[in-house]
Amino acid sequence: MRMVDLILKTRSGKELSRREIEFIVNGFVKGEVPDYQMAAWLMAVCFTDMTSAEIGELTRTMVYSGDVVDLSSLRGVKVDKHSTGGVGDTTTLVVAPLVAACGGTVAKMSGRGLGHTGGTLDKLESVPGLSVSLSEARFKQIVDEIGLCVTGQTGNLDPADKLIYALRDVTGTVESVPLIASSIMSKKIASGADAIVLDVKVGSGAFMQTLEDARRLARTMVDIGAHVGRRTVAVITDMNQPLGMAVGNGLEMKEAIETLSGRLPEGDPLYEVCMLLASKMLLLANLAQSDAEAREKLKAALDSGAGLKKLEAMLRAMGGDTACVKDPSLLCRVKRKLDVFPAGSGYVADMDAVSIGVAAQLLGAGRAKKEDAIDPAVGLVMRKRRGDYIRRDEPLATLYVNESARLAEAASKLRSAVAISKAPPERIPMVYEVIE
Amino acid sequence: MRMVDLILKTRSGKELSRREIEFIVNGFVKGEVPDYQMAAWLMAVCFTDMTSAEIGELTRTMVYSGDVVDLSSLRGVKVDKHSTGGVGDTTTLVVAPLVAACGGTVAKMSGRGLGHTGGTLDKLESVPGLSVSLSEARFKQIVDEIGLCVTGQTGNLDPADKLIYALRDVTGTVESVPLIASSIMSKKIASGADAIVLDVKVGSGAFMQTLEDARRLARTMVDIGAHVGRRTVAVITDMNQPLGMAVGNGLEMKEAIETLSGRLPEGDPLYEVCMLLASKMLLLANLAQSDAEAREKLKAALDSGAGLKKLEAMLRAMGGDTACVKDPSLLCRVKRKLDVFPAGSGYVADMDAVSIGVAAQLLGAGRAKKEDAIDPAVGLVMRKRRGDYIRRDEPLATLYVNESARLAEAASKLRSAVAISKAPPERIPMVYEVIE
Repeated sequence: MRMVDLILKTRSGKELSRREIEFIVNGFVKGEVPDYQMAAWLMAVCFTDMTSAEIGELTRTMVYSGDVVDLSSLRGVKVDKHSTGGVGDTTTLVVAPLVAACGGTVAKMSGRGLGHTGGTLDKLESVPGLSVSLSEARFKQIVDEIGLCVTGQTGNLDPADKLIYALRDVTGTVESVPLIASSIMSKKIASGADAIVLDVKVGSGAFMQTLEDARRLARTMVDIGAHVGRRTVAVITDMNQPLGMAVGNGLEMKEAIETLSGRLPEGDPLYEVCMLLASKMLLLANLAQSDAEAREKLKAALDSGAGLKKLEAMLRAMGGDTACVKDPSLLCRVKRKLDVFPAGSGYVADMDAVSIGVAAQLLGAGRAKKEDAIDPAVGLVMRKRRGDYIRRDEPLATLYVNESARLAEAASKLRSAVAISKAPPERIPMVYEVIE
Repeated sequence: MRMVDLILKTRSGKELSRREIEFIVNGFVKGEVPDYQMAAWLMAVCFTDMTSAEIGELTRTMVYSGDVVDLSSLRGVKVDKHSTGGVGDTTTLVVAPLVAACGGTVAKMSGRGLGHTGGTLDKLESVPGLSVSLSEARFKQIVDEIGLCVTGQTGNLDPADKLIYALRDVTGTVESVPLIASSIMSKKIASGADAIVLDVKVGSGAFMQTLEDARRLARTMVDIGAHVGRRTVAVITDMNQPLGMAVGNGLEMKEAIETLSGRLPEGDPLYEVCMLLASKMLLLANLAQSDAEAREKLKAALDSGAGLKKLEAMLRAMGGDTACVKDPSLLCRVKRKLDVFPAGSGYVADMDAVSIGVAAQLLGAGRAKKEDAIDPAVGLVMRKRRGDYIRRDEPLATLYVNESARLAEAASKLRSAVAISKAPPERIPMVYEVIE
């Protein structure tokens, strides 16, 4: 088998066999397929797409390129969730404890934030003393004891994805549904999940800008799940504004604690997406027979404080100081808070969620490069949502500031990210579709 | 400027500027643009195509990536010809002497054969004693004295093309009109031609399989000529059978000598293509005002033997033993000759010219790899042309054999390359189009 022939096969739109895909991926990981051939193949994939069978085989081969976490010693269906990345999306910190409180098992490996998107590991680390670097044994022990743990990747997980992603990043081949889908799903599968709930974001703050693209990505990932025998459900949710009000690590942890304390009303976007994801997770884990039953259990876990207790137990087990659970303001003590006002009175017509994420990043809440340090306490809290009326003397958002170097830039970024109009904007749904 | 942004620009179908193309090509030659990024960009070009301005700039940048031969000390318009590669195509060895005999200046750099196609340098080397490795000074001196010389490349000509071609060869990006056109034209321009006649082959033995593809390649190259200020004409000619009857280096040199001796009738494909190319060369060199005048001069050079004398003078100047000019059979003395017969009687309906080229290669006339040695005397002579009637006891071709190891394979390859049918095949033209 020659790599150049396989490149030509993909270039001409023919389907690769399982053996051919293994040749490419394993050859690349072993260094037998050089990066220039892999780059040409990836670019050909961007143009010709892949069949469902090819994407399934690509994902399977990536999964087995390294260690696969074995969660079989843990009880029940291990159910994971994944979001394609948004702004102010703190759902994991709400959903995982709620599902655990309803008897679910959530053994989740998460990542760090980059650019305008946050990462659950960074949010967890806003809790003093907490460490996300757990051994696989300790990780499993925590899950066994309390039903959930969210940690960083352990072992040599999915090296094919790391190598392929690094190459895609510098060769203009990031945007490709088969490559995005196989990257996400291979990591989830390698980290041991039996069932997966995917939250595919669509809108200004999301990687997928149109519903059509989001639907294709969602469908592709659900198909991969079927191909490798993992029950997978995808929901498509809106990212035309930050999901929660908080953008920043400690601020989002605070918002998660408040959400688990029952402070969010029904109809609130963060509340609704959390309930949807958690409900799908309970259904996949066979812990509820219907959406109504699932939501009833989740509501009970919220009202009784059982969800919050699960979060607290996890934070404690990971070495964190749990004083923040009683007093979440401990997580966002900053030198000063600064209100940002709108350009004029009117309706909040549109938000550029990416710019809002970048504004928080400029304050020190996010990284431009992987090696950048972040400040857990800083960020911003939106005071208005899309569709709200705002007077020119009302704050649009509050910035939490320690280091002022790029404060003016952040404030200006935020202000220009929000469009104000005389008429109220058209309503857009919070949840577009469920694909299963 | 970042290479990844330029890859994305090409991927999304946007036009690159002159500076951006220089960044890519010069960066790649200097090793600043890594091969994996270049490979991704080349594959994106294969899918999105390039504008005429982009192809022009690509070619110009490739030309100036290395030495450019300066032929300005030579008199007249230096006119070059190039064929996109075929089987039994010995036109250079007929056309260059004829044009020189009519007062033209042909300072041509040629190449070697690979795979099923022959190379003019290999054909020249079938003449005992002849060397194609001339210094640039000696090359120019010969052109100055006799009006023509065909040699190998001198100096560091078009290193961008060498590097890009080597990468294309292993990344499945060979087939691409902009990349093929810029490769051909940059070499021609760097080797100093003022005007260029291109013979774009179409058919079973050609790189371009359809007239539409051939037309696109021809038009693209003529446009490049206009972009860089070199008068360029392209003709599209048939390659659904070997152009001449001979396939093999000494055999093709013999056929060139015989053609220049006036042994080919009008209407013969080799004769017709030679006259067309030579006529276009005289017109571009301002040595004739009309096609009729050009052909009249060429016919006179053929009839008087002036063309043959030019070839003889060149062979002698390059150190060759010119006994072969009087007795061309000296060029193809082999251990044995073997006739190949058709499967049955009928009309020669179709020929797979690539397979016929490969049959000659199997006998030792061509190379599978660049470093392979070749035998100048071996090859094959077709005895019938497309459309001819052949009886089952008539030879289809004669093989010229020294080494018999792959003889059976060659004979079988040849026989299966020729389709025999009861009815005569549809006539196809020898010359499809002239693009100028």
